[in-house]
Amino acid sequence: MAKLIEPKVLKGFRDFLPEQEIERRGLMEKLEETYRSFGFVPIDTPVLEYTDVLLGKGGGETDKQVYHFLDNGNRDVSMRFDLTVPFARYMAAHRHELYLPFKRYHINKVWRGENTQKGRYREFIQCDFDIVGVDSASSDFEILLMMRSSMQKLGVKDCTVHFSHRGIFNRFLDNQGLLDKSVEILRIVDKISKIGRDEVVSQLAEIADGTRAERIVDFIEMKDSFKDTLANMTELAGGLGEDTERLVEIWKAIGDMGLEKSFVLNPSITRGLDYYTGLVYETFLDELPSIGSVCSGGRYNNLAGLYTKEELPGVGASVGLDRLLAALDELGQSSRKKSYTKVLIFQMEGSLMGHYHTLAGQFRERGISCEVFPVDKKLNQQFKFAEQKEIPFGIICGPEEKAAGKVNLKNLSNRESFEGITLKEAIEIINPEEGKSKRSPGNVELFEK
Amino acid sequence: MAKLIEPKVLKGFRDFLPEQEIERRGLMEKLEETYRSFGFVPIDTPVLEYTDVLLGKGGGETDKQVYHFLDNGNRDVSMRFDLTVPFARYMAAHRHELYLPFKRYHINKVWRGENTQKGRYREFIQCDFDIVGVDSASSDFEILLMMRSSMQKLGVKDCTVHFSHRGIFNRFLDNQGLLDKSVEILRIVDKISKIGRDEVVSQLAEIADGTRAERIVDFIEMKDSFKDTLANMTELAGGLGEDTERLVEIWKAIGDMGLEKSFVLNPSITRGLDYYTGLVYETFLDELPSIGSVCSGGRYNNLAGLYTKEELPGVGASVGLDRLLAALDELGQSSRKKSYTKVLIFQMEGSLMGHYHTLAGQFRERGISCEVFPVDKKLNQQFKFAEQKEIPFGIICGPEEKAAGKVNLKNLSNRESFEGITLKEAIEIINPEEGKSKRSPGNVELFEK
Repeated sequence: MAKLIEPKVLKGFRDFLPEQEIERRGLMEKLEETYRSFGFVPIDTPVLEYTDVLLGKGGGETDKQVYHFLDNGNRDVSMRFDLTVPFARYMAAHRHELYLPFKRYHINKVWRGENTQKGRYREFIQCDFDIVGVDSASSDFEILLMMRSSMQKLGVKDCTVHFSHRGIFNRFLDNQGLLDKSVEILRIVDKISKIGRDEVVSQLAEIADGTRAERIVDFIEMKDSFKDTLANMTELAGGLGEDTERLVEIWKAIGDMGLEKSFVLNPSITRGLDYYTGLVYETFLDELPSIGSVCSGGRYNNLAGLYTKEELPGVGASVGLDRLLAALDELGQSSRKKSYTKVLIFQMEGSLMGHYHTLAGQFRERGISCEVFPVDKKLNQQFKFAEQKEIPFGIICGPEEKAAGKVNLKNLSNRESFEGITLKEAIEIINPEEGKSKRSPGNVELFEK
Repeated sequence: MAKLIEPKVLKGFRDFLPEQEIERRGLMEKLEETYRSFGFVPIDTPVLEYTDVLLGKGGGETDKQVYHFLDNGNRDVSMRFDLTVPFARYMAAHRHELYLPFKRYHINKVWRGENTQKGRYREFIQCDFDIVGVDSASSDFEILLMMRSSMQKLGVKDCTVHFSHRGIFNRFLDNQGLLDKSVEILRIVDKISKIGRDEVVSQLAEIADGTRAERIVDFIEMKDSFKDTLANMTELAGGLGEDTERLVEIWKAIGDMGLEKSFVLNPSITRGLDYYTGLVYETFLDELPSIGSVCSGGRYNNLAGLYTKEELPGVGASVGLDRLLAALDELGQSSRKKSYTKVLIFQMEGSLMGHYHTLAGQFRERGISCEVFPVDKKLNQQFKFAEQKEIPFGIICGPEEKAAGKVNLKNLSNRESFEGITLKEAIEIINPEEGKSKRSPGNVELFEK
């Protein structure tokens, strides 16, 4: 006999047990429902792409993290490491088949050979949404609203979106003669919530002088109100501009909708990436701010410059699904369940198989998920199965019940029994709403003679 | 300026445009809904696995098709080429965390470096479902029922499941002294619908003699009824057995449910794979049988023998998603649409941005997907956008309408206009059902003063 193979998975990769996958899918379905309700459409792109298409000419730091190899046709191919680059390529490739503004969402796996010690995974799901082809306050605002709506849809009590404008920050740096050092400065500023104000000043002082370091920290500080913060930013950046005007426009709409409590102008939000040029934002859960931003993004002025001459401005965001799942777990907002099954039909006698499956079909027609225990085992084993799968109701039906057009229903959580009732009565007990509103008597006639 | 990169995709890989992806997702969502209603739970496994875990020791013919490479840690890794092997590994790895019988579905991508000239793709979605840990007529039957239900859910008018039993076929071959040649015989028999009876006989005659070739073809022929076909199979296989009993049991349940027209015992169904040991089946669309089976599978006696000593019998099937999509397209049953958006709110004046997004939110609360045109462009351009995205309704609202708590609604398909109506009235026109049943006046008060 051959030696058994150990069924192990790669480090940084995960199997998902049913309750984990049900939770994850539930989360993705709710996000997707929100995106669709805002007019976003789904797309898909291949997992494997030509390496030079995905990484551009240079490649750079990302390279080492990218899973790439020669395929059987000797093509240098890579597994996608994010959903942004494939989207840029997609827009360039299909521009003539699409309309603008184009609003897409994409929820799928990406791979990065990262150090797993930091609790990071090498295979994880990204969830991106963007509005491309327009640079307007309304589209900026729509992304902000959608981030908030999607969190509400997930049952999060409240969240706050912190936003700022990269254009104003860049003007400020330019004003201070520090624009050429923006990459390092952004990297340091981005850490302020982790390392604190003083450490940021001291790190900044190493690349600017002490006065300018203090000024940077002054710039990124929130004041008492949107107005005060914006006034401070405006002054340090050298006056008003289209960028400050954009923030005012967005803030007015926030006010018109009475949402001032959910949005805050926070100039320390800069998003590290060079890519962003306009509005930038991060989303924090009010009950669990420590977990960090669960949804972030910003406006960029040129999505697909690697692939096309057409400038495609856009605004978008990405949800950190693993982080969000962890947060919902911690807040008790996750919907962990073992299965979708609502009713188990016990197998009392093999010859009634057709009847059991008929009953199951009738429950399903009423939107009640139902399964038949597949083998004639002892009742206590069938009860144990229902418990393991957390099935709330059981139907017990022998030849007499069948002959009488009746069933016995058992509430498996409180052991309450309803003996000799009709299928219609059973449906009303299992799903009171369903029983009342969508009754279509045709299918239960059999049981009401 | 850097040279532009051509945004090309690899041969055998595909981008999905929104209307294609909406169709594909719609299909998968309906399948998933059916599986859940039958008590199946979702799982997930990694795309990358250790090559020796995925391919076993030998590997064999599949190897050349498998995308495999050395990762940065010098591990020999492979992209999954099906969902069955990962499921076997999964069951062995998580056996102690799961209950039996275990019913799972898994819908996700797999990769095979196949010859693309046959119209095959190198990246495609598989859709598998299995009941593991039990060998019973009821679980066999449940899989058959679920295949039928899922096709009905997709709007397919009628389909026929052709089934047989590999155990009887094997007994027959044994009886004829041909068991050692079963692999070649199965391969030839499997082609009968493509190459015809005569060609099958002549190919079989090359490995058996002429008489036995005729007998094989006699065995696999359908007679006038289930009873006659089974009688013929039984006789040629050397008498009754547990296998024939299983078929009788299943046929009785089919009869009890009045489904004889949807199922047919067809002994030419053998499924090429060595893997199967019991019931085997294929599903054909009555209106389009020529496209071949859209859902096939069978019973096996040992799922995870490579990884565990525990014998795990099971029964399952797999949907050919690409083929099914092609079939639905041909039958006009596909739901091609450009977006989910039902209402476009036209942008008449930038200062009303907050009001437009408030209106959009109120539509969404009623389950009506809605978006705001994001920039103050000429009306005809906004109409064109609505047309391109196939949005059926438009809301046009200027400062006077806002002041009066009214909107103008336009049916964009027939150009009918409803001027100066309340939001509530608009909702009732757009979604008559929704307007009536789920009215919760709280949110429309504003528009009914």
